[in-house]
Amino acid sequence: MKNLTLLTDLYELTMMQGYFESGTHNKLCVFDMFFRGNPCGNGYSVFAGLEQLIDYIENLRFDDGDLEYLKSLGLFTEGFLAYLKDFKFTGELYAMREGTVMFPCEPIVRVRAPIMEAQLIESALLNIINHQSLIATKASRVIEATHGEPVMEFGLRRALGPDSSVYGARAAVIGGCIGTSNVLCGKMFDVPVKGTHAHSWIMSFPDELTAFRAYAKAFPRDCLLLVDTYDTLKSGVPNAITVFKELIESGQEIRSLGIRLDSGDLAFLSKAARKMLDAAGLQRVAICASNDLDEDLIQSLKIQGATITVWGVGTNLITSKGCSAFGGVYKLAAESDGGEFIPRIKISNNPEKITIPGIKKVYRLVDKETGKIKADLVTLEHEKPDMDKPLTLFDPNNTWRRMTLEAGRYEARELLVPVFTDGVRVYDSVPVMKIREYCAEQKKMLWDEHKRLTNPHEVPVDLSDELYELKQRMIHEARGH
Amino acid sequence: MKNLTLLTDLYELTMMQGYFESGTHNKLCVFDMFFRGNPCGNGYSVFAGLEQLIDYIENLRFDDGDLEYLKSLGLFTEGFLAYLKDFKFTGELYAMREGTVMFPCEPIVRVRAPIMEAQLIESALLNIINHQSLIATKASRVIEATHGEPVMEFGLRRALGPDSSVYGARAAVIGGCIGTSNVLCGKMFDVPVKGTHAHSWIMSFPDELTAFRAYAKAFPRDCLLLVDTYDTLKSGVPNAITVFKELIESGQEIRSLGIRLDSGDLAFLSKAARKMLDAAGLQRVAICASNDLDEDLIQSLKIQGATITVWGVGTNLITSKGCSAFGGVYKLAAESDGGEFIPRIKISNNPEKITIPGIKKVYRLVDKETGKIKADLVTLEHEKPDMDKPLTLFDPNNTWRRMTLEAGRYEARELLVPVFTDGVRVYDSVPVMKIREYCAEQKKMLWDEHKRLTNPHEVPVDLSDELYELKQRMIHEARGH
Repeated sequence: MKNLTLLTDLYELTMMQGYFESGTHNKLCVFDMFFRGNPCGNGYSVFAGLEQLIDYIENLRFDDGDLEYLKSLGLFTEGFLAYLKDFKFTGELYAMREGTVMFPCEPIVRVRAPIMEAQLIESALLNIINHQSLIATKASRVIEATHGEPVMEFGLRRALGPDSSVYGARAAVIGGCIGTSNVLCGKMFDVPVKGTHAHSWIMSFPDELTAFRAYAKAFPRDCLLLVDTYDTLKSGVPNAITVFKELIESGQEIRSLGIRLDSGDLAFLSKAARKMLDAAGLQRVAICASNDLDEDLIQSLKIQGATITVWGVGTNLITSKGCSAFGGVYKLAAESDGGEFIPRIKISNNPEKITIPGIKKVYRLVDKETGKIKADLVTLEHEKPDMDKPLTLFDPNNTWRRMTLEAGRYEARELLVPVFTDGVRVYDSVPVMKIREYCAEQKKMLWDEHKRLTNPHEVPVDLSDELYELKQRMIHEARGH
Repeated sequence: MKNLTLLTDLYELTMMQGYFESGTHNKLCVFDMFFRGNPCGNGYSVFAGLEQLIDYIENLRFDDGDLEYLKSLGLFTEGFLAYLKDFKFTGELYAMREGTVMFPCEPIVRVRAPIMEAQLIESALLNIINHQSLIATKASRVIEATHGEPVMEFGLRRALGPDSSVYGARAAVIGGCIGTSNVLCGKMFDVPVKGTHAHSWIMSFPDELTAFRAYAKAFPRDCLLLVDTYDTLKSGVPNAITVFKELIESGQEIRSLGIRLDSGDLAFLSKAARKMLDAAGLQRVAICASNDLDEDLIQSLKIQGATITVWGVGTNLITSKGCSAFGGVYKLAAESDGGEFIPRIKISNNPEKITIPGIKKVYRLVDKETGKIKADLVTLEHEKPDMDKPLTLFDPNNTWRRMTLEAGRYEARELLVPVFTDGVRVYDSVPVMKIREYCAEQKKMLWDEHKRLTNPHEVPVDLSDELYELKQRMIHEARGH
């Protein structure tokens, strides 16, 4: 990855200089990244982007060109620029594992570092995690709509820039896509790449049949033919049937056969094509569809009985149509001048914008019998649920809503794991296809009611008694102040 | 820029191998990039991203790692991989100048090259131009809503990945933003960077007044204070007034003073803050606002008489909320086996999806008296409007809609300019701030009715008689076929 050290908002640097010049730059701080709502009204989100965040932090270094540029702005002092020359991240970072299912209002990344370092990384940290978590979550929704039928990521040409396509495809695979058309993503992350041909291939031959034959000759093993260039049912499907039969008769090794529909009424065309293929004895031929699909359209096609079995999703996945940003934020939770950490809170007239103070952990409470998530519990750092005792949880916004987990019937799993300690990486890379598996396991821990696309049931995120009381006390103090 | 050679859809490579193996790879092709509708219902779009497209094409080269990866896929022949080793772009590319105002259904990029080359670059070309044109167009809308009041781009933390933030900010500046918070964008493209401090700055001091004083001490020349951490009107604005007065009395050089509102009712708060500032004799203090703004919210704030004069727009600009993708496509228009070029057309049941055949030029017809655009005219390559003769235009979809431009009263300016000739770049880089100026000039060529945000008047894009007839003939031939 190229040097992204300057990938920061200018105010991070002006604040850093402010701290530096006022001598408060050695103050230690704890910042939490969290988010306030799932994208697209989903019942959960998927944490993604950690590997790129690690790359970014490991490569933090102001090179000569960076320093020269900053100097040219006329904003920064010589002393501060000299300090930046040797800047590196020396702090601690905890985060959820990539692919973890996560919920609003719980810490998903926690940074403990000198204020200068914690501040510099804010913008890039949010950029990277917000982006990939958005796309991984959207991909999950799309796959929910197909009832788990394979989805391919096809969005390169409409993604918001090169990175957006490559890391977006990575995140889409984490969220469950079986592969991507993006070759650079395939190379960088060892994920399956998929593809066939375009209308221009068909048009560059004298006729469709010749074009299909040429393609089948070049790629006999996985022969997916685009059938809608001229007329899907009168020309495309009959020609494809001819070529599939020739291919089968030739006795060559064949792994997969399929047709792709990219326009028109996909419900009608898929059913008509299925009948034609079946009548020709080609039950094994898959029907793949694309054309501005998203989870809503896929659900509608399913309801109409479309016989599509492989789904190509482009634009609306890679740009997360309907919710084009993930709202992760990064807020100060505690600070220390060398001694004990003092919890900090940000008050707002809007109750959901009030932050949770203190250095925190997140436990996932899992029902031992069903393996499903009962709730997530946010606690202070020194707390650990005693699984041999019953645990009463309550909704921090409606404290009369309570639930008691019976002793011995639940497990408390810690979700934030160490990624950097004293500036050194302590987290091993996980291959993307492994993260994908892990994410699929995570989703099995949710009931269907949490996974439905509209008005899903919410998983509670509760605070420990101690943390709840700390928060209430600090709110009262701040309001009284 | 890093090597993006593999930033392509797999099917481009499988098609290339197909052409290579069938011996048709030396065929010359012409492809057009065009789009079918402006984003967000706008009356025009802004062409952006050309500089990055040029970088990409100049750096096309399959390195050993790329070739090894492709080999590992088990899809490609030794002969084809050997061919890729020496691959480079040898063709011609014409495009609009960056910052040009453009309309649906006219060519904005035209590629004439061996089919292999024209095909490989499709995905990245669309990715780059679609992304930046989307954001430049969205920025134009936002600035239209502020009636030209300054807009700063603030979207780094919610952009869809690092590139998306950097190139997105570049495009936002082309579309009219006065600067960005994104330091890396500032460095790469020499555009103004802007910023102040965050809530965490305020919270890291014992109280707000101390925090403001520390900031004013560090940055006396451009002192913009965030006033909503505790209570905007009871605490933030009064403290800011104290600090501004101290700063003015200190006699230091001051360029700009301002407060920033980032939450709450921006209409109410801005008016109340304006009164308080004015009553303190601080008419010169600007009011800057941010918080999930977009063009609709800005229009609403304007209607409510908000006294905001500087606008910070983040998430909804950098992700183009409401229209998260630009629908540029890349279609075959002509091909040649060495002799003359034969026009090609893609037929569709959907009339607007039928392509315009042939090698084409685009002329902008400008009224000499007003300087405003009358229409764009798409012609065949050999045509040139004779400006000394009257010119009758007609809507290609409703041919009874006609308009005659009087001889001598209009000017025909060619919009597609050479960028690559025989694989060599012939287009000089233009600094982003110059492109921004050019774009602003371009927008002056539109009437207000074309620029309004809802239901704008459309600028006609017409076909020359010869091109119209060619298209009709080819449609009839294809339908009869």
